Amino acid sequence: MTEILFLPFEKTAQPDGVKNILELAREAGVPLQSTCGGKKICGKCKVIVEKSDGPLPPPSDRECEVFGELVDKGYRLACDTILTNKAVVLIPEESRLKRQVILTSDAEHQYPVRLQSNVNQYYVEVAPPVLNSVIADRERLLLALSSAYGIHRPGLDPFVLQKLPHTLRSDRKGITATIRDKREIIDLYTGRQDGLFGMAFDIGTTTVVGYLMDLLTGNKLSVKSAMNPQIAMGDDVITRISFCHEEAGGLEKLRASIVECLNALIVEASLEAGIDPSRIMEATVVGNTAMHHLFVGLDPQYLSIAPYPPVLQERQDYKARDLGIKIGASAYVHLLPLKAGFVGSDTIACVLATGLHKSKIPTLLIDLGTNGEIVLGNKNRMLCCSTAAGPAFEGGHIRWGMRASAGAIERLKIDPVSLDVKCETIDNEAPLGLCGSGIISAIAEMIRTGIILEKGNFSEEIQSPRLRDGEDGTEFVLVRASETATKQDIVITRKDVAELQMARSAVYAGATLLMEQFEGEQVRRILLAGACGNYADPLDACTVDLFPACETARVIGVGNAAGHGSCLTLLDKNKRKEAERIAGKIEYRELAAANRFQELFVSSMFFTSALDYQDDF
Amino acid sequence: MTEILFLPFEKTAQPDGVKNILELAREAGVPLQSTCGGKKICGKCKVIVEKSDGPLPPPSDRECEVFGELVDKGYRLACDTILTNKAVVLIPEESRLKRQVILTSDAEHQYPVRLQSNVNQYYVEVAPPVLNSVIADRERLLLALSSAYGIHRPGLDPFVLQKLPHTLRSDRKGITATIRDKREIIDLYTGRQDGLFGMAFDIGTTTVVGYLMDLLTGNKLSVKSAMNPQIAMGDDVITRISFCHEEAGGLEKLRASIVECLNALIVEASLEAGIDPSRIMEATVVGNTAMHHLFVGLDPQYLSIAPYPPVLQERQDYKARDLGIKIGASAYVHLLPLKAGFVGSDTIACVLATGLHKSKIPTLLIDLGTNGEIVLGNKNRMLCCSTAAGPAFEGGHIRWGMRASAGAIERLKIDPVSLDVKCETIDNEAPLGLCGSGIISAIAEMIRTGIILEKGNFSEEIQSPRLRDGEDGTEFVLVRASETATKQDIVITRKDVAELQMARSAVYAGATLLMEQFEGEQVRRILLAGACGNYADPLDACTVDLFPACETARVIGVGNAAGHGSCLTLLDKNKRKEAERIAGKIEYRELAAANRFQELFVSSMFFTSALDYQDDF
Repeated sequence: MTEILFLPFEKTAQPDGVKNILELAREAGVPLQSTCGGKKICGKCKVIVEKSDGPLPPPSDRECEVFGELVDKGYRLACDTILTNKAVVLIPEESRLKRQVILTSDAEHQYPVRLQSNVNQYYVEVAPPVLNSVIADRERLLLALSSAYGIHRPGLDPFVLQKLPHTLRSDRKGITATIRDKREIIDLYTGRQDGLFGMAFDIGTTTVVGYLMDLLTGNKLSVKSAMNPQIAMGDDVITRISFCHEEAGGLEKLRASIVECLNALIVEASLEAGIDPSRIMEATVVGNTAMHHLFVGLDPQYLSIAPYPPVLQERQDYKARDLGIKIGASAYVHLLPLKAGFVGSDTIACVLATGLHKSKIPTLLIDLGTNGEIVLGNKNRMLCCSTAAGPAFEGGHIRWGMRASAGAIERLKIDPVSLDVKCETIDNEAPLGLCGSGIISAIAEMIRTGIILEKGNFSEEIQSPRLRDGEDGTEFVLVRASETATKQDIVITRKDVAELQMARSAVYAGATLLMEQFEGEQVRRILLAGACGNYADPLDACTVDLFPACETARVIGVGNAAGHGSCLTLLDKNKRKEAERIAGKIEYRELAAANRFQELFVSSMFFTSALDYQDDF
Repeated sequence: MTEILFLPFEKTAQPDGVKNILELAREAGVPLQSTCGGKKICGKCKVIVEKSDGPLPPPSDRECEVFGELVDKGYRLACDTILTNKAVVLIPEESRLKRQVILTSDAEHQYPVRLQSNVNQYYVEVAPPVLNSVIADRERLLLALSSAYGIHRPGLDPFVLQKLPHTLRSDRKGITATIRDKREIIDLYTGRQDGLFGMAFDIGTTTVVGYLMDLLTGNKLSVKSAMNPQIAMGDDVITRISFCHEEAGGLEKLRASIVECLNALIVEASLEAGIDPSRIMEATVVGNTAMHHLFVGLDPQYLSIAPYPPVLQERQDYKARDLGIKIGASAYVHLLPLKAGFVGSDTIACVLATGLHKSKIPTLLIDLGTNGEIVLGNKNRMLCCSTAAGPAFEGGHIRWGMRASAGAIERLKIDPVSLDVKCETIDNEAPLGLCGSGIISAIAEMIRTGIILEKGNFSEEIQSPRLRDGEDGTEFVLVRASETATKQDIVITRKDVAELQMARSAVYAGATLLMEQFEGEQVRRILLAGACGNYADPLDACTVDLFPACETARVIGVGNAAGHGSCLTLLDKNKRKEAERIAGKIEYRELAAANRFQELFVSSMFFTSALDYQDDF
């Protein structure tokens, strides 16, 4: 049958002697680029006619001009060529339409990204060796890649080189090379192969998330998360840094545990997606500076000593094997740039994902984790700082605090008269404890019902069986033992309130300091990143005075923006340069050096909004 | 005391207000370069005045022209500056006189080389971190290197990066960075450190040699050799290639054994020199193509199948750790380029070491090993081929053959009348057997005394108790049991003679074929490389018709030229490019495709010179 086969998409079309290649490709659903829409102007619809049963039509003047001698090798403009015979047409990588990919299904914060992976697959047929003219296997492969794709002499990883002689001599025709950045061949397969995967990681102090992505379609295949196993060696960054220099081999223990964790996520995600982890050919990693340093084996101890310098700031590419990460043997792990000792690549990734650096309106971005990183700015200027919020926002140091998992109370309502409590839990399971947003919600409701007063102390005027004396002074019973999963009362104690006061004062003071220094327009948008930030009710956040500017700004939860930023840089190589530009442009403010921060921290310790609700009485 | 300290040489001189820096440096024995000899023309005597107790004299016009703004940083021309105060003057790497190094003590074949190592050490003092301007450790190191040496943003190996924070913060002032090719930092030490070593290897099919070199002085510190342990898996290249595909994990076994062998040589040589192997920061490797492929784990099986293509030909740099070579953790192993399946980097290294590629007169180079590689040419044109000589030249397949070690007969004389034999053995020990040169010597003498006839058969006319019947037909007793180390007679059998006939016919035919194709002047110099070639007596070699052109050419033994070529590329980085140019220029002749070779091989089987000696009778 007379048909045209479009490679590498394996799609076909019937030539009718009228439609040009571009029109046929469109009908067949082949993603062939054409900026001018077939008006013979842009020259972007370059294709290569690899085979044809008959002679090709003579090239147009425009084709001769664009391709020169290459027209003899079948290089044509799709909009200018009408085929009549059976033929095979290759759409080279640069002529393929780049797909727009949406990372989340949540319409509120979509992260559209152009699929432009750093690693790509190229199919070539390699000329056989001949006697009397010694051309090595490697050289013949490079010649084939150069003539088919114009890729000039990429390097070959030593382990890939070992596969070359057999791959070249299989029963199947041709070979598929996986090439990174057009510069290094990092894998080889016999025949025409499709299947190229990547993994994006966000290493948090408490939680580690891994996203397995299909690099040919941009689809998210699996998302897996785990507790950071380093918690066994210290709850927060500072205790882990101490572990490094107090414990013999501490750094190596911390490093080994996070590497093992990432490898476990790789295996879990690959199993779910039904792929072989060795076909994961690129990984990206974001994390705060300490997590970054521990992952690559850099001693973080000087991060905790003024002036807190990181060992490095630039983005880095490591061979996965040098880090012990078990993906493709010759694949790389890309680490995004860091800003400072306590503003890491996770913050850069948040900015990247939320587009703050392109925003016209002044935006405050708060990543609520064990450290609270804060960015304030717009496309003209950005300031950032880090506050040691402590683990309260992730449920730590709170009597009934817990991670955001099944059974965690994430939101609640207190009846202003009866003080009865209605809880929403994750997965609607029997209450086990409170996650970060649940803690904020509980304290906000207790303020609104007058239970908690301005200074954080409990009202002595309210009489209710729910308010009672406990180990840590007065406590308020949220859920009675009969209704909980543990068969114990779930309570909020005076000490819990104090923990949240400390945490939120740090964030509030940091944000205020940046606003004082920003000297621009008023903040009109507040983005809350991190699991707690995302699920916290904006009204609750304002009630507990989590940040200033509540009156003027719209508050939006943006989910795990750091993780999404990691995914973006995996799918679109240009986002890596963008991350670098953000890191270069953003201005860091060291709060430890600022007396003004101490003043603000102390003065923002009270719940000012409690005064409004007390007036009601 | 008013004195000038020259760094990094730690030498001092007294300024007298008259002599310029160049003159003082010369008196102090500081190797400061000056092509024009202080005539203020060449601008090569660039120095950096790092400290001075008083103001420097104003710069000359010439200095302003050469350095521009850098004069403010102390950049001066030594010939144009007179110091009067106490000062510290740094001689930057590019201004240092390059030492000429002689590789061997043997005046007959010296290999002078300019010491220009690919790796160098740089001492810098790094600015401390400051608050409110986050500059990472890495960035501060790079700034220091850039301002002191103009080295622009070299990479940092991940394992070196791990050493950075501690190295920067030791009690000692400054740090010393080992940098490869001005492009990558591969080691770091605290304070001012000297000590930089390299190891050059020649991997032969039978023998492996390792040279430990001091890269700061060019001195050879230790030479160690060992049998290639792959012999246990096959005597020659072809049987080892078979082992690869006939034995499960054969390639990995062969690779592991040669890596272990190299590591053992590294340890032995380091012990002898009293250095730590981790301070060896570069290695070079030459070998035939099969040895090269087995070393880096490339399946060599296609080398034995027409058209015998190698997997690669270009020079390669591997991280030592990726190969399992135990030198500096971040050091590289450099492999010289290959020419063809049976002409490897050892042949390229021989050409490099002997300077054949620069020779005006046509020269024949024969590397006598298990394979006999032959090069014929001069600076205008070079041809090469490889002949499967077999192991006879290394003592293999010869009844009493052995390696060239203590007790091996390396030369002998037979009394033409009594047929008594006088032997010279290595180290003058009791005879154990014959090494390659001993075999050639024995057969040459037997031809000259009429014992061996033209066709290689033994004379039936000679009556002597030394000529007797043995297992393999007639044999000639060289040394009687009472005088040998083994208390057995050492003999030459008819079969031994046949082995040598085959081996030398292959070499003779190969050389003749190249001479026929060279179409130039007559060969006027013959270089014999390899242990056997080096120790063989030129007259003996001519008597056994080892090569053509005996009448016209001077025959010179050049020792282990391949090993010396490996050393050259270790000491002088420019020799690597030269090796690449040789590999590109030399023309390969595939003997397997040449009927003419078969004709020549058969027709050269006879000992033609035997006819001369037979006439005597």
